[in-house]
Amino acid sequence: MENKLKIGIIGLGTVGCGVVKVLSQFNDIEIVKAAVKNLSKKRSVKIDNLTDDPFQIANDPDIDIVVEVAGGVEIMDALIAAIKNKKHIVTANKELLARHGAMLFDLARENNVVILYEAAVAGGIPIIFPIKTSLLANTFNSVAGILNGTTNYILTKMEEDNLSYNECLIKAQKLGYAETDPTGDVEGYDAMYKIAILANIVFNLRVDISKIYCEGITKITAEDIKIADELGYKIKLIAQAKRINKANRDDILDIRVHPMLVSKNKPLANTKDATNAVLLNGFPVDRVMFVGPGAGEFPTASSVAGDILSIKSEISQRTNILPMAVCHHNEYAIQIKIEDTINCYFLHIEAKSEPGIIGKIGCACAQFGINISYVIQKGTTEDGRATIIVLTEECFEKDMNAMIEKLELENLIKVKNKIRVM
Amino acid sequence: MENKLKIGIIGLGTVGCGVVKVLSQFNDIEIVKAAVKNLSKKRSVKIDNLTDDPFQIANDPDIDIVVEVAGGVEIMDALIAAIKNKKHIVTANKELLARHGAMLFDLARENNVVILYEAAVAGGIPIIFPIKTSLLANTFNSVAGILNGTTNYILTKMEEDNLSYNECLIKAQKLGYAETDPTGDVEGYDAMYKIAILANIVFNLRVDISKIYCEGITKITAEDIKIADELGYKIKLIAQAKRINKANRDDILDIRVHPMLVSKNKPLANTKDATNAVLLNGFPVDRVMFVGPGAGEFPTASSVAGDILSIKSEISQRTNILPMAVCHHNEYAIQIKIEDTINCYFLHIEAKSEPGIIGKIGCACAQFGINISYVIQKGTTEDGRATIIVLTEECFEKDMNAMIEKLELENLIKVKNKIRVM
Repeated sequence: MENKLKIGIIGLGTVGCGVVKVLSQFNDIEIVKAAVKNLSKKRSVKIDNLTDDPFQIANDPDIDIVVEVAGGVEIMDALIAAIKNKKHIVTANKELLARHGAMLFDLARENNVVILYEAAVAGGIPIIFPIKTSLLANTFNSVAGILNGTTNYILTKMEEDNLSYNECLIKAQKLGYAETDPTGDVEGYDAMYKIAILANIVFNLRVDISKIYCEGITKITAEDIKIADELGYKIKLIAQAKRINKANRDDILDIRVHPMLVSKNKPLANTKDATNAVLLNGFPVDRVMFVGPGAGEFPTASSVAGDILSIKSEISQRTNILPMAVCHHNEYAIQIKIEDTINCYFLHIEAKSEPGIIGKIGCACAQFGINISYVIQKGTTEDGRATIIVLTEECFEKDMNAMIEKLELENLIKVKNKIRVM
Repeated sequence: MENKLKIGIIGLGTVGCGVVKVLSQFNDIEIVKAAVKNLSKKRSVKIDNLTDDPFQIANDPDIDIVVEVAGGVEIMDALIAAIKNKKHIVTANKELLARHGAMLFDLARENNVVILYEAAVAGGIPIIFPIKTSLLANTFNSVAGILNGTTNYILTKMEEDNLSYNECLIKAQKLGYAETDPTGDVEGYDAMYKIAILANIVFNLRVDISKIYCEGITKITAEDIKIADELGYKIKLIAQAKRINKANRDDILDIRVHPMLVSKNKPLANTKDATNAVLLNGFPVDRVMFVGPGAGEFPTASSVAGDILSIKSEISQRTNILPMAVCHHNEYAIQIKIEDTINCYFLHIEAKSEPGIIGKIGCACAQFGINISYVIQKGTTEDGRATIIVLTEECFEKDMNAMIEKLELENLIKVKNKIRVM
């Protein structure tokens, strides 16, 4: 009995209950205590020792590992206390790590404990550990992915059932894929936290999330999706971080989250519903992709339990555990602004149907040095408005924005949506 | 200088040279010696200390890790000597591990060293370490994948360019994707070694490769591929291992390698050219997929170097390194025979075109309890032979074989190809 690994859990929501169920299969792991917000709430698991004070976990000398699946930044003080008490941390808290990871990892290193967080990015998909072990010899150029299951589910349903964003959001909420307040998912913040964490370990540089451009899916219409489909693309919320090789520096990163047109023959285009996918590009490995469930009770518990077992397998052997899992990335990246990025664009334009309208668009593009690769007028409504679709070659975001501003000056032309193309 | 990790390499072919190039980026790793078959062969890297005797590596007291990228089983004695000399082994040798892994892992455990082999399965894709770390809490039901790049390249080219198997094989040989003697790839043996290794760690059971059913791609025709395409399928060489829950046992496995029809909306169907993919299915993670380059100088070197760095990060810290990487699977699996497996089938039939021929096929199927889900006559040649395609529901392989035997008795009907459906 005394050789059992002692776990304290903070948070007994969906993921927390999944972790309890999964760990119950292991005889040598014991959950000694759990902290919850609401002691009287009904749950699908029973823990004998419940508390509503997370410091009861952080300060319990009997606990070896603190599992934090509560979420949010307000839990930070309890985790700091736990680290100072030499407890290892296993967490699924992407927001906390994206905002305060640097400080927490430093503190963990000082206290000779580890913070593992496989569950914080892409749910059940193993991605953090592979980057830190099997792929350790690589220098990466980019990481890109579909990191939010809620928005991918909504976009998939919009496409498959030709429904509006709002109709699909309600559907997602009914199925438990979206929260009552869906902001964190649909505005891209959840994906932003995750790409910040990934960029951190992929490029070994600290990331400032306030400098990450973030655009959600709320403006995407069923019409955008239909037209993109006709042109051979799917629309996906893509989170990406790329190294920009400029001025002999290797610490300039382009990190952003926004919807993109993805060519149907690209692997990310075929990632459906709540599935997540992460694509890594580097040398010597070239291109590898990881696909799987990005959320959910059991997949997330798989990653949490994997982290616990990884610590367990080493914990009794020496003091300095899991050196591969320790985070070192002391330098901040230089993060470029969205205006300075180069992209291809899909423009969904509504215009007064009159002769020369496409010429006008062509002239405006030419003025800003933007090459059009494709343009089509999709027919005219009864009140004389035409839908025009433009695909452009690569240009600076700032030139595109200036061109759109000029186009819209005369009130004849409205750019209903501007979506970048992968 | 004395803190450098000392590496000895056995084999300086494509992968070996890639490993040397990748490791040259790490100042704290030194390749002290390399063993090759032919000392005078021209190579893309220069090693000062070359030998044609692998025991010079195995017995060199200066070497910490032996990297074996020579391949074949004849290298085993040198590796045994290296293990007994307390050297860690990093190997890409799938055949050796599939045939003698059990013995080698036992020997490594006795000598307190590890054998890492990320590069032996699916080249640059991290799969061995993720199964042993992040996915450690899972009980898997199945592992399936496209594990051989050569055959996947050939099948992709047959489909895309509508060419014969032989034409594509020659193309693959010219591009260096296939060897002069392609037997190991095209007959499925390479994929068989890899699925044996995967089954080992996924189910924690020893596998006897002589009991693995193995069928290559040499009988697949461009016509099979074209017809399968019309029906919504691709033809892929699938290596798979499934747990068969029977008689309250959890050690009965169905392991096999053969071509399969894979529905186009399944992720494995979209794995093209020399790309590999591995699909794991278990609880709690559900379904995860890993995709990437299955071979090649640099991707394979990525995995070899990842293993070396993983050992390096732990080697100085204690005597008992990488407990997660140690292989324990003392029990042999019970492996079921191909005759006892249940499958859906695609039958490519050539028959004398006469009234009642489809009825004849239907009666034969009915006699053996085989349900037909789809049947079509694809037209008749000038000499009166018709092509008939049949898709069946699930039935035992032995019933299918008996049915085919009966069909072919009268010499009116010939089953040109029988391909299982995923």
